[in-house]
Amino acid sequence: MAYFVGIDLGGTRIKIALGDDKRILITRNVKARKELSFMSNIRIIEDTIKVICEEQKIMFMDISSIGFSFPSLVNNELKKVISTNDKFNDAKEFDWVEWSKSTFGAYISLENDARMACYGEWKSGAGRPFTDFVMMTLGTGVGTAVIMDGNPLVGKHFQAGNLGGHLTVDYAGALCSCGNRGCVEAEASSTALKRLVETHPKILESELKNRSKIDFATIFDLAESDLVALEIRDHCLDVWSAAIVNYIHAYDPEAIIISGGIMNSKKIILPYLREKVGGLAWSPWGHVAILSSELNDNAGVNGAFLMAKNEFEKHERKKIKLR
Amino acid sequence: MAYFVGIDLGGTRIKIALGDDKRILITRNVKARKELSFMSNIRIIEDTIKVICEEQKIMFMDISSIGFSFPSLVNNELKKVISTNDKFNDAKEFDWVEWSKSTFGAYISLENDARMACYGEWKSGAGRPFTDFVMMTLGTGVGTAVIMDGNPLVGKHFQAGNLGGHLTVDYAGALCSCGNRGCVEAEASSTALKRLVETHPKILESELKNRSKIDFATIFDLAESDLVALEIRDHCLDVWSAAIVNYIHAYDPEAIIISGGIMNSKKIILPYLREKVGGLAWSPWGHVAILSSELNDNAGVNGAFLMAKNEFEKHERKKIKLR
Repeated sequence: MAYFVGIDLGGTRIKIALGDDKRILITRNVKARKELSFMSNIRIIEDTIKVICEEQKIMFMDISSIGFSFPSLVNNELKKVISTNDKFNDAKEFDWVEWSKSTFGAYISLENDARMACYGEWKSGAGRPFTDFVMMTLGTGVGTAVIMDGNPLVGKHFQAGNLGGHLTVDYAGALCSCGNRGCVEAEASSTALKRLVETHPKILESELKNRSKIDFATIFDLAESDLVALEIRDHCLDVWSAAIVNYIHAYDPEAIIISGGIMNSKKIILPYLREKVGGLAWSPWGHVAILSSELNDNAGVNGAFLMAKNEFEKHERKKIKLR
Repeated sequence: MAYFVGIDLGGTRIKIALGDDKRILITRNVKARKELSFMSNIRIIEDTIKVICEEQKIMFMDISSIGFSFPSLVNNELKKVISTNDKFNDAKEFDWVEWSKSTFGAYISLENDARMACYGEWKSGAGRPFTDFVMMTLGTGVGTAVIMDGNPLVGKHFQAGNLGGHLTVDYAGALCSCGNRGCVEAEASSTALKRLVETHPKILESELKNRSKIDFATIFDLAESDLVALEIRDHCLDVWSAAIVNYIHAYDPEAIIISGGIMNSKKIILPYLREKVGGLAWSPWGHVAILSSELNDNAGVNGAFLMAKNEFEKHERKKIKLR
């Protein structure tokens, strides 16, 4: 029996799934230690896999393939981390193939976190019906990944489809942490909320001035009764609409799938985006579907597990060919 | 000997190239009659091909393959025109395969004009060194096409990469003819110039108020001495910079290749765009090259000729396989 492990390393949590060729048998969710080195986190990962393997009476050497979702740019062909955004910096020197081989005797598949979550959503979530869609994750930042013509979009430097949060929607807009101006992320993300609230001309008339913690849940709750919260909510929805129009015009997809904690308010978000985008986007064949993610936070670990399985099957097919 | 014909049908001109497998032997440039039906233009095309064939002592039946560049959305697999933008409307019912077969005994390859010009630039122009680039044509509108991973980007509905003129760069900006707001084309194109000049707050202090014809050549000439012209020029350059940043973030290319009559001023345009985009775009591996087209107006007919040749070779390879 072949077993597979999916690992989703995030800034705060590490999610691990172990399963066979039919399904995920067990998942585990442990704290990521971004204040420590990447190597320390690898030890945490190994220990966790050891525990769940013992629980399932599976040996390390029974693991055929590993899928690893890393929270920055990776070269998925050479299996190398390209950049690290100032966390897990020593991951750039890590030898992934050697690690998975010597530790588990397994193949490994390495992918950027946004693309891995998109892969998971495609193979086992809301993306199943489509060959062409854009996944958009709304949170601290705005992340994207693209499936086009039945394949993940990769690009020359491995970042095609992943910078949808940094498409300019207002070229004279707010400075973004990336160095550009008026990015989707700079105009409407959890990070942008602070500025939007503080600089709102009517902030003194708003309940928001008394809140110490301002997140999208606060904004969406208050929007029912508070004019400033309503204006900020609608501003964000308009920015996301412009972003989605750009994804449609850039990638020509069948669907946009949105994930992130904010989709708890999908009953407000989806109808708004559908109407606004429907009126703005150029799609002579009909409307692009705008949907909510099915897997949400688990899209990444699901994707990593399924990509591990896919990597193993690729190698098996190659062996059969060679015979 | 196999002969090939490339046809570039534009709104005002029809360009036709006839050649063999080594080179283009002869080109001809005739007036398009967009006030007439598409079928009338097909007759003009047939007559022109007849004339140049006679000049070259080539028979219709010696033509092995046709490449056709059409100025709107096409399904390049089924070889059908999808939409027509209110000119050559009867092209939607035209049977391209039957026409090329019965008229010339030839294969046919049909493509959208922006993608065909990009193909020409890729195979025989400034795009030769690249597997991944975006071609941007500045003119009445702003057109784009993309080569990614060594293939033209097509998308689910055949318009991926072709709507770069309709990426939003100012979501609260000017209404575009496409129905969207703040498109690149609505903010900085020949069509946008009229509005930019008329609504400029200092227009009465500018030499531009006396000009009956205002095009980019006028703006770039006057910008040396006229403050309003300078501001409008720099506004357009800033919008194009934002557009290019969006192409880089969306498609992850090695290069942006710009064509259009305005590139007569490339000595001003290219350094400006390179500096501005270099400071804004997220490209950790280095700078994306920003270059001028080599083929300009002839990219389309070159692309059509080369795609005709490619289509023929594809069929020949298939025949060899079948033997």
